[in-house]
Amino acid sequence: MPRPASTNVRGNKYPMVTPDGRAMFSVRAPQAKEVVVDICNKKYKMTRGFMGEWTVTTDPLVVGFHYYFLNIDGVAVADPMSDSFYGCGVMTSGIEIPESASDAAYYTYDKSIPHGQVRECHYWSEKEQSMRRCFVYTPAEYETKKNAKYPVLYLQHGMGEDERGWHQQGKMAEILDNSIAAGKSVPMIVVMDYGNCGYIFGKLRGETRDQFGASFGPVLIDEVIPYIESHFRVKTGKDNRAMAGLSWGGKQTFDITLANLDKFSYIGAFSGALFISPNADFNTLYGGVFADADKFNKQCKYLFMGIGTEEGDGAKNAVNLLRSHGINAVYYESQGTAHEWLTWRRCLNEFIPHLFKK
Amino acid sequence: MPRPASTNVRGNKYPMVTPDGRAMFSVRAPQAKEVVVDICNKKYKMTRGFMGEWTVTTDPLVVGFHYYFLNIDGVAVADPMSDSFYGCGVMTSGIEIPESASDAAYYTYDKSIPHGQVRECHYWSEKEQSMRRCFVYTPAEYETKKNAKYPVLYLQHGMGEDERGWHQQGKMAEILDNSIAAGKSVPMIVVMDYGNCGYIFGKLRGETRDQFGASFGPVLIDEVIPYIESHFRVKTGKDNRAMAGLSWGGKQTFDITLANLDKFSYIGAFSGALFISPNADFNTLYGGVFADADKFNKQCKYLFMGIGTEEGDGAKNAVNLLRSHGINAVYYESQGTAHEWLTWRRCLNEFIPHLFKK
Repeated sequence: MPRPASTNVRGNKYPMVTPDGRAMFSVRAPQAKEVVVDICNKKYKMTRGFMGEWTVTTDPLVVGFHYYFLNIDGVAVADPMSDSFYGCGVMTSGIEIPESASDAAYYTYDKSIPHGQVRECHYWSEKEQSMRRCFVYTPAEYETKKNAKYPVLYLQHGMGEDERGWHQQGKMAEILDNSIAAGKSVPMIVVMDYGNCGYIFGKLRGETRDQFGASFGPVLIDEVIPYIESHFRVKTGKDNRAMAGLSWGGKQTFDITLANLDKFSYIGAFSGALFISPNADFNTLYGGVFADADKFNKQCKYLFMGIGTEEGDGAKNAVNLLRSHGINAVYYESQGTAHEWLTWRRCLNEFIPHLFKK
Repeated sequence: MPRPASTNVRGNKYPMVTPDGRAMFSVRAPQAKEVVVDICNKKYKMTRGFMGEWTVTTDPLVVGFHYYFLNIDGVAVADPMSDSFYGCGVMTSGIEIPESASDAAYYTYDKSIPHGQVRECHYWSEKEQSMRRCFVYTPAEYETKKNAKYPVLYLQHGMGEDERGWHQQGKMAEILDNSIAAGKSVPMIVVMDYGNCGYIFGKLRGETRDQFGASFGPVLIDEVIPYIESHFRVKTGKDNRAMAGLSWGGKQTFDITLANLDKFSYIGAFSGALFISPNADFNTLYGGVFADADKFNKQCKYLFMGIGTEEGDGAKNAVNLLRSHGINAVYYESQGTAHEWLTWRRCLNEFIPHLFKK
């Protein structure tokens, strides 16, 4: 039986998902000439019915969370029947193609365990002369252990997304709650800020790849970290700070942490846009931090690179290259998933048990 | 000079707002036959330009926050250039027609004062056998006065909106921060939950007006309040609880508080859908709570009804009727505003200084 997608606006029947993972879309548009669903880099032309109801059923889709658009007579818009998510530099629609309950358990709300909170915080940025916003996950025990202090993971979204992504699309609170309750991960605080890459690269005239999102580094180091450390009960020092990011956020994570190994000991890139070339000069790559592998392996307690099997071999090649230079790097592969949020949920779930334990 | 609306998705130029409060919309849709902007209960047909760019400039709009839709060849959708807001039972677009800086100061972020946080909390509802979500504002000092306890305002959205509304559209955190920092209001916690009226009345077959949203009452009393009182440092008892709501949330506030005057001492209805008829029998109205005015005036320490001047005389008539029966009721009128969020921001700002002081 097809069922309404969990990502629909409450009460809406469509889109529906079939047991074999197809999405069924239905849009009432009696006057439209052409209606198209644009999902997972594929466009499905809808068929007009007798009453002006346009419908289409997709091919089976990969499990997980996918952005999609409706295209009505040439205009790409969010589907009024879906919840909206910030992605692709705009408010988009999203659909969750469900996994089995057991596969999805780690990011599913469990009523039998204690739950953390996600706090929206506003702070003033002197650098940008404007208010900025971050979301901060505090673990369940933060409310009861009133003098305890916690280590912090700084967790970044990808290009065209923003500080909302990890919580809304990524289900990070459920992942943390479940992992901590199971004793796999230590209780930690997770900070999700805006990486200044919420539009699509190339939109600003004259901007280079290295400039895109680069303004976030000084904001994180000089403003976000001091804000968090003065407003939350956190442990300070490099061994109590981790940073990870997905896609462009993975590039930012490498750029920021490798230039600040006195401030971070745990590093993760999930489908990271890393640009480590086979011909890279390890004496100069990332300021030469990989030149002395022993020194790096003492400074960085955990270096994680994950990717979906449908994304190609970029992360695997990078890890192999790092390992060939003596760098301890962990490689993780998410089976059957693409450059999408399910890959990143799995990466987060694999990453966090290794943090702050040594 | 027209300026991009503050409600636009970051980086987008349109919609723009002119100095006299007109909105300028521009949508690229070369293949569309007709594009219409639907805002403030008025439809503006857009004009097709040479390159397939459709444009229109509205009449001067009332200041404040307005929902709007684009209608592309007969399909009402959110504007991809606007941030999305949950309203009208779907994700809609919104535009802020700005007031002067001084008029807007009470709901504007002020970098010179301390700021509270808005926490997203998930809890299990036995009544609904599902996870529910609420947002909880904690005042700035909640983080530093670690043993202090605070009174609580339960604050409800209107029909077709949900637990996100007061924070996103209503700017409640800024209003509370500013009022508390100025010493006008006592530090308090504000709880925003889902009133079970997030669709438009009449959508469910056979549902009566009295059934619409009525399931929220028992959830609030039996589940939300106990959750808040066990997870936050709150003062308990009727004199430490207020409830207010806008539009349908105003109706719910009256229905719930007047049936539970042992649990609430402060009551607010902002453009409330109250249905108090001139012919009402005060011996039976709301279970007869108004029959003994002296008793009611002792039980209820503050009864507030506010409305915009563009909404008609419903609230004024209700207050006059209550007063003619000896009930102490406060009437507030927002000048020049309609059934929209600016009215409700003003109502909240007028309401909170009177809470928890006697």
